[in-house]
Amino acid sequence: MTEKDAPIGVFDSGVGGLTVVKEIMRQIPNERIVYFGDTARVPYGTKSKATITRYSEQIVRFLQKSQVKAIVVACNTASAIALEELEGKVKLPMIGVVKPGAKVAVGATQNGRIGIIGTEATVSSGIYTKYIEQFSHNIKVIGKACPLLVPLVEEGLLQDPVTDEIAKRYLDELIDIDIDTLILGCTHYPLIHTTIQRIVGENVNLVNPAYETARELKEMLKQGGLISNNEAGLGSDRYRFYVSDGADKFKNFANSIIKYGILTAKTVNIEEF
Amino acid sequence: MTEKDAPIGVFDSGVGGLTVVKEIMRQIPNERIVYFGDTARVPYGTKSKATITRYSEQIVRFLQKSQVKAIVVACNTASAIALEELEGKVKLPMIGVVKPGAKVAVGATQNGRIGIIGTEATVSSGIYTKYIEQFSHNIKVIGKACPLLVPLVEEGLLQDPVTDEIAKRYLDELIDIDIDTLILGCTHYPLIHTTIQRIVGENVNLVNPAYETARELKEMLKQGGLISNNEAGLGSDRYRFYVSDGADKFKNFANSIIKYGILTAKTVNIEEF
Repeated sequence: MTEKDAPIGVFDSGVGGLTVVKEIMRQIPNERIVYFGDTARVPYGTKSKATITRYSEQIVRFLQKSQVKAIVVACNTASAIALEELEGKVKLPMIGVVKPGAKVAVGATQNGRIGIIGTEATVSSGIYTKYIEQFSHNIKVIGKACPLLVPLVEEGLLQDPVTDEIAKRYLDELIDIDIDTLILGCTHYPLIHTTIQRIVGENVNLVNPAYETARELKEMLKQGGLISNNEAGLGSDRYRFYVSDGADKFKNFANSIIKYGILTAKTVNIEEF
Repeated sequence: MTEKDAPIGVFDSGVGGLTVVKEIMRQIPNERIVYFGDTARVPYGTKSKATITRYSEQIVRFLQKSQVKAIVVACNTASAIALEELEGKVKLPMIGVVKPGAKVAVGATQNGRIGIIGTEATVSSGIYTKYIEQFSHNIKVIGKACPLLVPLVEEGLLQDPVTDEIAKRYLDELIDIDIDTLILGCTHYPLIHTTIQRIVGENVNLVNPAYETARELKEMLKQGGLISNNEAGLGSDRYRFYVSDGADKFKNFANSIIKYGILTAKTVNIEEF
């Protein structure tokens, strides 16, 4: 197998990164993908920098064993906390979801007020503000940690008065300061897109970084001469999924999101990497 | 240090086990305690048996390095899933929270209908039913997994309409079948005792296994000749706390629960054990 035909490695703290995988499949359909979801140690959003970085490094070592040609950090928390350190250590093209999300938001805002919702770790890192300032100096960025939204989504309360109430509490503060753009800074949030849009109102642009991440990944691969074009050679294992716990549960969830017959979902003891 | 004066090892998936520590401190005040909270990998309740067992074994190896004389599994999920296997491997007196809780519930029920609330892993293990049947054959046991209560408690929504609504949804099923006793089968639940009591009504006995666990621990130590009586030699490090992530955050939370000036809270890389 040439380097071009090697898989793209994608990882997330759990299942949320599948929203990014779905977009990669759509935008660059001729690529192989190896996905790792750290379902044993999810959530990352409440953990320390040292722990998030150590976990991310283990996953990168695992993906490197699969000889991936590039790595997508499809987790906002790991992108916010660990990506810079990973880039310093790993000799592979890497991309996270934070910078693409920041870029789109800057392009979308009219009044210069961007809200960002995410985990405690992502919001308190201030990384979205940092990237937004690289693109424009005249923007006010307001972050709000929403720790209960992930468990509510994972329990399937996607259309539920309780999720409405909790989301409203988190978002009221952002509505009060008149944001016109809101970054969904956690891969779980697109699953309650409708609820969030209803609460913030139709005039607020919701930014889902998944689309732009897949687009920038494609660009990065092109520039590196790494785009695969050999569809004939992809075979039935073109999409391989690994998790640190509960492969069967993951497989069901994954099939419901990406609507592709996932054949391989295996459990890996990630602590050994 | 003689074996008698060695510490008791206590572990939990996170902070919940502190409710058990508090009770041990009260009932057997002359004992040293080494506590481990697996704050990096919390929650356990959604994980597989293989993973919960592997994590518990690592923690037991860590506690054995501290030369503990006995181990308290102060986590319902680990007690339900891993205790039997641990007992087969470890040559130390061990006690979990499930059996003591089951025993108290059997003594408390009048109508022979006991409800048990806990994590998915605890409830689906059926272990409370198994122990209750050891004590009595004429009891109907009804389990209900309450996955959202832990995140709600951890976010501090102890007195909140959202917690009321979610608890009501979980408990309605148990109220409908007329339980007169309810086991709080997760160490977080005593923190919303008032809410639960209001929902199920004053006539339902709430069983918190922590009290009975500490009582049985005392009995077990007495029978093994392991009760410490040397208060003079305990020193300032009599209570030592270790976590797998976020020692400072843990220290603040722990001090708010057990009202004892905790001096030592250290982060340990538990994956190395």
